[in-house]
Amino acid sequence: MSIKALLSLSGGLDSLSCLAIALEQGYDVHTVSFYYGQRHQVELEAAQNIAQHYKVPHQLVDLSFLGKLKGSALTNDQIAVPEYDGGSSIPDTYVPSRNIIFLSVLSSMAETIGAEKIIIGASSIDYSGYPDCRPEFFQAFQQTLDLGTKTGVEDKGISIETPLIDLSKAQTIEKGVALGVDYSMSISCYSANAQGEACGKCDSCYLRKKGFQDAGIADPTRYKVREKSELGS
Amino acid sequence: MSIKALLSLSGGLDSLSCLAIALEQGYDVHTVSFYYGQRHQVELEAAQNIAQHYKVPHQLVDLSFLGKLKGSALTNDQIAVPEYDGGSSIPDTYVPSRNIIFLSVLSSMAETIGAEKIIIGASSIDYSGYPDCRPEFFQAFQQTLDLGTKTGVEDKGISIETPLIDLSKAQTIEKGVALGVDYSMSISCYSANAQGEACGKCDSCYLRKKGFQDAGIADPTRYKVREKSELGS
Repeated sequence: MSIKALLSLSGGLDSLSCLAIALEQGYDVHTVSFYYGQRHQVELEAAQNIAQHYKVPHQLVDLSFLGKLKGSALTNDQIAVPEYDGGSSIPDTYVPSRNIIFLSVLSSMAETIGAEKIIIGASSIDYSGYPDCRPEFFQAFQQTLDLGTKTGVEDKGISIETPLIDLSKAQTIEKGVALGVDYSMSISCYSANAQGEACGKCDSCYLRKKGFQDAGIADPTRYKVREKSELGS
Repeated sequence: MSIKALLSLSGGLDSLSCLAIALEQGYDVHTVSFYYGQRHQVELEAAQNIAQHYKVPHQLVDLSFLGKLKGSALTNDQIAVPEYDGGSSIPDTYVPSRNIIFLSVLSSMAETIGAEKIIIGASSIDYSGYPDCRPEFFQAFQQTLDLGTKTGVEDKGISIETPLIDLSKAQTIEKGVALGVDYSMSISCYSANAQGEACGKCDSCYLRKKGFQDAGIADPTRYKVREKSELGS
């Protein structure tokens, strides 16, 4: 019997890549998406489409309370989504403790359904500088799961897998394409519109676009018309 | 200006004690309760009454998804709440990853409102054997917060305080009574009825009852009538 794994599926490029990798590895993958009041809710539709495409179970978990905290540009209309500026500080799109909450919920679900793996598509190479995407954070959280869960204390435990942690965006894309991934299914933009068209300007769009360029692979992303002309494409 | 602290207020004896201690310490205390589909929802009314009594802000966070997982006797009517048996294994009342989730949510709230402390009334002395009540778990989670939050990386960080971790139930009660706590406001029973009457038999009732006995302090708990006669009280 294959090992059960819970995969955090945001609907973006990274989690789609993780899904393809996890299926290739032979895991019995169950996908989970989170509604946390994000303004780019269209990513949840993308997640659903991706799960259907790969015929894996998909569950949407309601974390509306997180959106109500209004602690981030991603959950608060009053804070503009910043354009990519190459800066080294943590940007306004940081959602306080988001990955800590996601992993906690996944841990609870994993314990309940007997999953031994939690897979999350974080990268510490081409990323927005969020502290909860770094290897040292995942190591600390692994320790937390080993000591704080029943399965960690009495049974096999739950291990966190971050297959993209050391990959550049281009490397992730190359890996995904080799596994037959159709990236047009994914949405990465922090302010994608209801049609799933990307802004082309936010951190997430910048990193994605650069990834396709660096990999020398045609970018299947649909950009908003206004930005399309601005971008000259 | 006093230090802002977020306190997990379940409505039980321990969190009520923590609140009295935190106020004595001069913290600007904000209380948070969690709805997670627990069968003893009456504890949330107790939490609200306690917050009103102490005139501290109180927020209820909806974690209904946790109840839907049905992973515990506390959230699943099909699993009986076990009576206290003095055993050393983790009982069916364990809610998978509950404290991990609670602390994660409190971390997000703390980051958002600028609280430097998270206070939780866990004890590793008179407790039900849950792994997420042990000092080593809290140490691991502290590390997670130091490495995984913006404030942990860039600012003062958030420190987890567990003022009851080394206290027996009797010591907690003595401390609370010395601070003027009225424990009749609190509900500890895992299967309290809508009137807030306790069963007298579950782990939580056993530890609470024994605590009052050991401390030589009259137990103000209201027990269910049937159990009252069984107990001969």
